[in-house]
Amino acid sequence: MVNFTSKQAMNNKVRIQDSFWDPFMELVRGTVIPYQWDALNDAIEGAEPSYAIRNFRIAAGLEEGEFGGFIFQDSDLAKWLEAVGYSLAMMPDPALEQTADEVIELIAKAQHENGYLNTYFTIKKPGQAWTNLHEAHELYCAGHMMEAAVAYYDATGKRKLLDVMCRFADYIETVFGREPGQIRGYDGHQEVELALIKLAQATGEERYVKLAQFFIDERGTEPNFLVEECRDREGFSYWTQKKQPIPTVAQMAYNQAHKPVREQEVAIGHSVRAVYMYTAMADLARLTADESLFSACRRLWDNTTKKQMYITGGIGSTHHGEAFTFDYDMPNDTVYAETCASIGLIFFAQRMLQLEAKSEYADVMERALYNNVIGSMSQDGKHYFYVNPLEVWPKASELNPSRHHVKAERQKWFGCSCCPPNVARLLSSLNNYIYTSSPSTNTVYTHLFIGSEARFQLAVGEVVLTQQSKLPWEGYVRIELTLVPQETFTLALRIPSWSQGRAAMKINGVLTTYDTVNGYASVDRPWMQGDIVEWELVLEAQLTIAHPEIRANAGKVAIERGPLVYCIEEVDNVTSLSSISIDVGQKLQPNYEPNLLGGAVMIGTEAYANESTSWVDDSPYRPFTQQQALERVRLKAVPYYLWGNRGVGEMTVWIRKGGV
Amino acid sequence: MVNFTSKQAMNNKVRIQDSFWDPFMELVRGTVIPYQWDALNDAIEGAEPSYAIRNFRIAAGLEEGEFGGFIFQDSDLAKWLEAVGYSLAMMPDPALEQTADEVIELIAKAQHENGYLNTYFTIKKPGQAWTNLHEAHELYCAGHMMEAAVAYYDATGKRKLLDVMCRFADYIETVFGREPGQIRGYDGHQEVELALIKLAQATGEERYVKLAQFFIDERGTEPNFLVEECRDREGFSYWTQKKQPIPTVAQMAYNQAHKPVREQEVAIGHSVRAVYMYTAMADLARLTADESLFSACRRLWDNTTKKQMYITGGIGSTHHGEAFTFDYDMPNDTVYAETCASIGLIFFAQRMLQLEAKSEYADVMERALYNNVIGSMSQDGKHYFYVNPLEVWPKASELNPSRHHVKAERQKWFGCSCCPPNVARLLSSLNNYIYTSSPSTNTVYTHLFIGSEARFQLAVGEVVLTQQSKLPWEGYVRIELTLVPQETFTLALRIPSWSQGRAAMKINGVLTTYDTVNGYASVDRPWMQGDIVEWELVLEAQLTIAHPEIRANAGKVAIERGPLVYCIEEVDNVTSLSSISIDVGQKLQPNYEPNLLGGAVMIGTEAYANESTSWVDDSPYRPFTQQQALERVRLKAVPYYLWGNRGVGEMTVWIRKGGV
Repeated sequence: MVNFTSKQAMNNKVRIQDSFWDPFMELVRGTVIPYQWDALNDAIEGAEPSYAIRNFRIAAGLEEGEFGGFIFQDSDLAKWLEAVGYSLAMMPDPALEQTADEVIELIAKAQHENGYLNTYFTIKKPGQAWTNLHEAHELYCAGHMMEAAVAYYDATGKRKLLDVMCRFADYIETVFGREPGQIRGYDGHQEVELALIKLAQATGEERYVKLAQFFIDERGTEPNFLVEECRDREGFSYWTQKKQPIPTVAQMAYNQAHKPVREQEVAIGHSVRAVYMYTAMADLARLTADESLFSACRRLWDNTTKKQMYITGGIGSTHHGEAFTFDYDMPNDTVYAETCASIGLIFFAQRMLQLEAKSEYADVMERALYNNVIGSMSQDGKHYFYVNPLEVWPKASELNPSRHHVKAERQKWFGCSCCPPNVARLLSSLNNYIYTSSPSTNTVYTHLFIGSEARFQLAVGEVVLTQQSKLPWEGYVRIELTLVPQETFTLALRIPSWSQGRAAMKINGVLTTYDTVNGYASVDRPWMQGDIVEWELVLEAQLTIAHPEIRANAGKVAIERGPLVYCIEEVDNVTSLSSISIDVGQKLQPNYEPNLLGGAVMIGTEAYANESTSWVDDSPYRPFTQQQALERVRLKAVPYYLWGNRGVGEMTVWIRKGGV
Repeated sequence: MVNFTSKQAMNNKVRIQDSFWDPFMELVRGTVIPYQWDALNDAIEGAEPSYAIRNFRIAAGLEEGEFGGFIFQDSDLAKWLEAVGYSLAMMPDPALEQTADEVIELIAKAQHENGYLNTYFTIKKPGQAWTNLHEAHELYCAGHMMEAAVAYYDATGKRKLLDVMCRFADYIETVFGREPGQIRGYDGHQEVELALIKLAQATGEERYVKLAQFFIDERGTEPNFLVEECRDREGFSYWTQKKQPIPTVAQMAYNQAHKPVREQEVAIGHSVRAVYMYTAMADLARLTADESLFSACRRLWDNTTKKQMYITGGIGSTHHGEAFTFDYDMPNDTVYAETCASIGLIFFAQRMLQLEAKSEYADVMERALYNNVIGSMSQDGKHYFYVNPLEVWPKASELNPSRHHVKAERQKWFGCSCCPPNVARLLSSLNNYIYTSSPSTNTVYTHLFIGSEARFQLAVGEVVLTQQSKLPWEGYVRIELTLVPQETFTLALRIPSWSQGRAAMKINGVLTTYDTVNGYASVDRPWMQGDIVEWELVLEAQLTIAHPEIRANAGKVAIERGPLVYCIEEVDNVTSLSSISIDVGQKLQPNYEPNLLGGAVMIGTEAYANESTSWVDDSPYRPFTQQQALERVRLKAVPYYLWGNRGVGEMTVWIRKGGV
């Protein structure tokens, strides 16, 4: 039983206007989207070619040539188009829209008569579609293009790509299923599931939800589809281009297909696949009121965010398979914390908020957004981290192979370039993450404090409000109600975990009490047009410790201030950074530096540093009794998201507690 | 100009009798050698087959079959035979000698008419000898068999294997060289160089030294032989069985062939290859009085031991290529520290001591021997560590792929089983590492304090002494001179670095002053038969700190007592070990526990532990202000070499300084 009533709630109209976030969005609009367009067209000097557009041209019969790039290269164009859709929704741009229209024509030309669309199989393996779901990313690419189609349709009202992708989805529906002759299987990389939900919401077609549900329900059941499919291929692997041993069901944990999704206890395997799947599970739990799915979502949320999440909102502790490892295993130096995974975590959080408004989801969403995600992009919008480490020693990144994946500098467009367009599509759709509303309970929830104008349709009528925010630098938010219904409705403001509950609300200048419901300050009252709600959050720099089971952070603290995690960089401090220990008894002193990287609050405090001048004899080890007094030094920390923008150097988030 | 005068000095006759070391040697004799014989014969249940003997049988035409095991599998038999040689020298064993004689017959049968000997090429690639020196380990295997031949000849006087290997060496001499038609090249894995020196010393044949010199001199010169050889094979690689890009000269750093050996500044590449090469370089520097080689040895020694050596005497910071990384990069958890590499480091130290008696060489030799090397073997002699970590979290070893190479339990015989027979051959020849003598300066040096009877030939005559030692548990050594020449000679006792110079000498009960020469207490006097020299070393448990550039050890201390490094294990302490910080102001209390793992001195002290009971809310991060008081706990440390003998658990050498 599909419940589409919440569709409206998701499509609240929100427009961002915010001094912190506008520059990011402007960067996406003005730089990232054009730059990525060049990248898709292989027009960036010194970067590996993408081949994405060229593949479509070849598949469409407009050009001769070989397929280039990864097997999932189509998804890069899809993610770019999705970002374009969001961007056009925010700000019209006829030239960009025309470019998009043209590329959509190209995509349509590459579609087969029966609806199938995938340039790799069209160019390179005609007739072999759906023979390697385990590795070939066909449904994954389809899903991304569906998301693009929906975004572009929402922004422009143009149905061309939407129709293309509905035709593809209709075809997929005939290929996959439980009837004789159908494939009772699913993709090796989850994505189509969440995309089908979007397609259903855009078109009102409930059967797309059912198809998503099929994929989710089948996943991990016995006999294991992916294992059997490998057996049918006699173990032939696309990646190694030779026969491999048939994998075990347990090895399908990499694809979260080792057991039915409702039985999965912990986040495991490739982290992007995992969070994309959890996102679709939460969508389905909401739309079909599936309690067992909901409880699996809660369990996987808890494990992911409480036992396997870095303080920056990064997930995935190992580059081997870009994967989760196990509870509390969070090395800072050999970390993965892929940008895409944090973006997927934000998707998951958003869907959980749609299921139930609990501030912990928004806390995590905010953590991932303000740290791991925006930190992945350079200030020029043209360089990206794929891996987002919490500790970097550039020489080790260069010379110790265990750390080669940890780059000390943001890179140009990647060969496997999933992250940059993912950042673009998230930032350009950020307006969708700030609020949710519950029309039935007549509640408007504010999850993120980002300046914006928002319009909501509740049962009692329409609400329009304007939010102004001084986040992340100051804990002050002001909401003006510019349109209110006659009857009462509830305004619910998140009490961020970082405020430690120290949050005061004023209505029209008068301090007001509020009910705390699931971490939200809730005020249910008759509102007047022009009412001003001020939300004063204590935003103090603080030292944070990690759970004692997180061995990597033993004896260390991190600095946080509001939603921002801080780090220390070599450029501001003595080297090596490991020689520094922070004097935990001293005050943390925030200082806004307007000229530094667009303006930011730095934090200064007192610390100790090991002296090194007495190690004249070059011996690597010596008695502790010969240790000299520590030096007193000044420590300066910068927001994590700004690290690595001032040359190559050491960086660390976790700092030793001093001063022994 | 080859100087063989020191040959005699190396062949001092030394027999060990020592309560600490006898059990190890007995283990090698009684268990390891028979067990490894079974392993070589594929007779150990549950362990991967070795195929080593079978390969020789096939190559000798006694059996049909395919080659099995690694391309360098022959070297396992060689190392076993070498250990047998040393063992027979220590203690006759007719049955073992007969087994060895039989296998030597087998080896002789596998030799080609022209002297060539290698089962891989004989069985699998006849006619393709010397076509892939980069990868195929032919000279490496030859070298190990030469070492075996010399050891067996020295022990038994039997020339059979020595003659086989001389024939092979003679053949190698015709194949390699600077004349037209000869290969102007060298092996991808150094070993034959040091072996040829031994062969020269056993046979008096100077041309084997010259051949070793040729290999050393050619290495890394332009045009790069290994690169050109790859080009000749069109990049075909044995390991991948397909064509690979032609490697660059810089990539030959893995094989220490990226530049001429005299120009190499830092230890780089595969660490076993490196130290085997340095050993041969030191041999050649001594035998040919080559100053430029000597200075390269000193430089490489300094870099290896002062900037790239773990406190346990382990070297090699990464499992990628089992290699060195760069100065001060010594991660404790993703470490390699291969057993074979520490053994090679001991060889290098021994040769440096033959070049110049400086106590720092012996300090390192002792460190590697008492910690990394003997720690690699289980108390039953049947299980081995290949990788010797300084920090183990068993769950991470299992579930984080970056740590899969770090085993929490010693393993049975390995597929690539270089380490176990290397341990056997080192321990069974340990008598060769205790002393050196300088006949020309009439000095007897004692480097290691291991109970033994030793006989030296000086210019002034023969010296026989008996050493008794309470090491490593007590700092007391007693030397009795049982035969002395008429004229004066110098007795030089090492002042171990761990004594911090607090070393008192008594002669016949009377406190005596001594000269300190290069770290040795030197006494030059007329000695009387029956003179008793007592050597009282302050052997105190101490805390050790690491150089501030070693980031992995920042804020931490290790416990050492005499030559032994200590560690803490989960079985004796609270978990997780990372939650423990040591109270550096408290006394370290040694306590001999006779019933623990054969008897050992444990060390107890006071420490703090993070409380974990207050983390009831399951949140991974929380404000430092909520940190509860630390708990006071008792800490118990055990010698590193004994770790992992009481079940699987966490272990760490470096412990956080407390108690903040």
